[in-house]
Amino acid sequence: MQVIEWREGTLLFLDQTRLPLEEVVIETDDEHVVADAIKRLALRGAPLIGIAAAYGFVLALNKVSDPSKIPAAIERASVLLASTRPTAVNLFRALDRMKAAAEASLARPLHEFKIQILNEALALHREDESMCMAIGEYGAQLLPNAAVVVTHCNAGRLATGGKGTALAVIARAWELHKLKHVYMDETRPLMQGARLTAWELQRLGIPATLMTDSTAAFLMQRGLVNAVVVGADRITRNGDTANKVGTYGLAVLAKHHGIPLIVAAPTSTLDFELVNGSEIPIEQRSGREVTHIGGIRIAPEGVDVYSPAFDVTPGELISAIVTEKGVLRYPFRDAIERLRPERLPAV
Amino acid sequence: MQVIEWREGTLLFLDQTRLPLEEVVIETDDEHVVADAIKRLALRGAPLIGIAAAYGFVLALNKVSDPSKIPAAIERASVLLASTRPTAVNLFRALDRMKAAAEASLARPLHEFKIQILNEALALHREDESMCMAIGEYGAQLLPNAAVVVTHCNAGRLATGGKGTALAVIARAWELHKLKHVYMDETRPLMQGARLTAWELQRLGIPATLMTDSTAAFLMQRGLVNAVVVGADRITRNGDTANKVGTYGLAVLAKHHGIPLIVAAPTSTLDFELVNGSEIPIEQRSGREVTHIGGIRIAPEGVDVYSPAFDVTPGELISAIVTEKGVLRYPFRDAIERLRPERLPAV
Repeated sequence: MQVIEWREGTLLFLDQTRLPLEEVVIETDDEHVVADAIKRLALRGAPLIGIAAAYGFVLALNKVSDPSKIPAAIERASVLLASTRPTAVNLFRALDRMKAAAEASLARPLHEFKIQILNEALALHREDESMCMAIGEYGAQLLPNAAVVVTHCNAGRLATGGKGTALAVIARAWELHKLKHVYMDETRPLMQGARLTAWELQRLGIPATLMTDSTAAFLMQRGLVNAVVVGADRITRNGDTANKVGTYGLAVLAKHHGIPLIVAAPTSTLDFELVNGSEIPIEQRSGREVTHIGGIRIAPEGVDVYSPAFDVTPGELISAIVTEKGVLRYPFRDAIERLRPERLPAV
Repeated sequence: MQVIEWREGTLLFLDQTRLPLEEVVIETDDEHVVADAIKRLALRGAPLIGIAAAYGFVLALNKVSDPSKIPAAIERASVLLASTRPTAVNLFRALDRMKAAAEASLARPLHEFKIQILNEALALHREDESMCMAIGEYGAQLLPNAAVVVTHCNAGRLATGGKGTALAVIARAWELHKLKHVYMDETRPLMQGARLTAWELQRLGIPATLMTDSTAAFLMQRGLVNAVVVGADRITRNGDTANKVGTYGLAVLAKHHGIPLIVAAPTSTLDFELVNGSEIPIEQRSGREVTHIGGIRIAPEGVDVYSPAFDVTPGELISAIVTEKGVLRYPFRDAIERLRPERLPAV
């Protein structure tokens, strides 16, 4: 089973909230099921939620039988899917692309219109797959031999349409015999490291050790880490990077210990509309994700909780941003500007 | 109910592993129950395990009916209780003190001997209570007005024989109307922040917010934190401080953001035998504490885990060490040397 797969008019995807204990596949032709899956993190990872939103868009328009209702359906699907999560820009980029493709095909007969938008979603998915390969290739070159790497959250197969971003770098370095060991942050509150990255690396046969998020500093202090490799949910024009909460702390620690921080992300993560990280909306998650684990209450009733899902790492703490188009170095502004897609005019 | 209490020949204590959901009191006259409670963190916190070990020592010797067997019983009790946890030095200091008191009373009739060692344990407990008051008083002076404080793990009533160390500082600042808010690290893997500190601060009516350990960096970056206040498990002659894993990372983050890190600890936490932090033994905990929560498996079967219980913060990252005898400032070596008890000769 793939993480996400289009099969004859329906979408199949792994419910990631059930991993690693169960591999539950959800099959649906309802865009509301997709939107709900993104919200509850059954589908997560910035590139993957872009792909999922594209397929959700296709599902929504597949239901239309009266061509005059297409413009309203496009609008409804976009609003529904865009409202799922605020931080990862890939979601909005994918929806913009799907809308553009749909609008370009409005004059076609309905069945052709539907084929066109499905093709767009499939292309977006395939491009993501190639993007992962390229990121893995570029990123692996940056690691030293016998690298010992810390990674945070999950930026792997379960976060993309291919081999991942940070984990593609790690997997490619392993193939090239450059990687010695991976330490995985468990990544509270939702434990994507313990649940997802541990599961992926185990399947890849890559030697990896799980630790609490607080343990990374201890390893760095003892000189046991050569690099930190993470994904990204949104990167602004100056290289400021939103990623899973905890990334900023890792970045400060890496800087203090002279360890490079490598961000691996496709160019679809670049947000050319934002000048710097202070403009990135930060999703707040429910306190229950902190006070409960597996339905069991840990903290006392009535406790106040603060739970931002992401934080923003300033570009100056990032050694390299690895995209499918090559490696960017600080200061990032010019390099990022050169990656601006033609259809996005300079601000 | 107190956290720990001697009552007519038996020891009563709260089983902290059951908090905050249940307040279970264990009553025992068996030193093995005490040793086991320390091992499994039913009794935890550096000062409190010193007190618990002292009472455990009393329980062991209370069983002796033949005075000739006292020396062997002293030895057995010391070995049993010293083997429970390796990092907090208060445990060893308390046992040394109990042994010294016992040996000084060997010539007395058995019932007097027993009264003497019980008095020593009660004195140690009472001194810890006064120590907490003094630490609270000294520490509260260090906080700015309207202080917003981050604390890690639990260094409160549940960690001492009195009002705590870090939490005594916080509680005293609150009484003095100097404290605005506390942010509590949940403190993986055993969640002492979410379970114990949240419970204590709620009972004290102090406004407090729970967060994952990774969130502290985010708050600091936004300028929302004035001070980090933590306890300690062992402090070496140069001020290097072992405390719950995560403290070192907080210290680096505090330094990066220009925020003071205050360590609150009684002088019984000072280890005059160790020159610096590299000599502190670091307890490794079971991987199961990371892979399971509340008996539920989170990570895949067979995953490797690295779980040190403590880390060591170098003295140069610590703004102040608050003891019951006053506030120490970096460089700590001379100030610590002046606190050396008479009975411990200079090395």
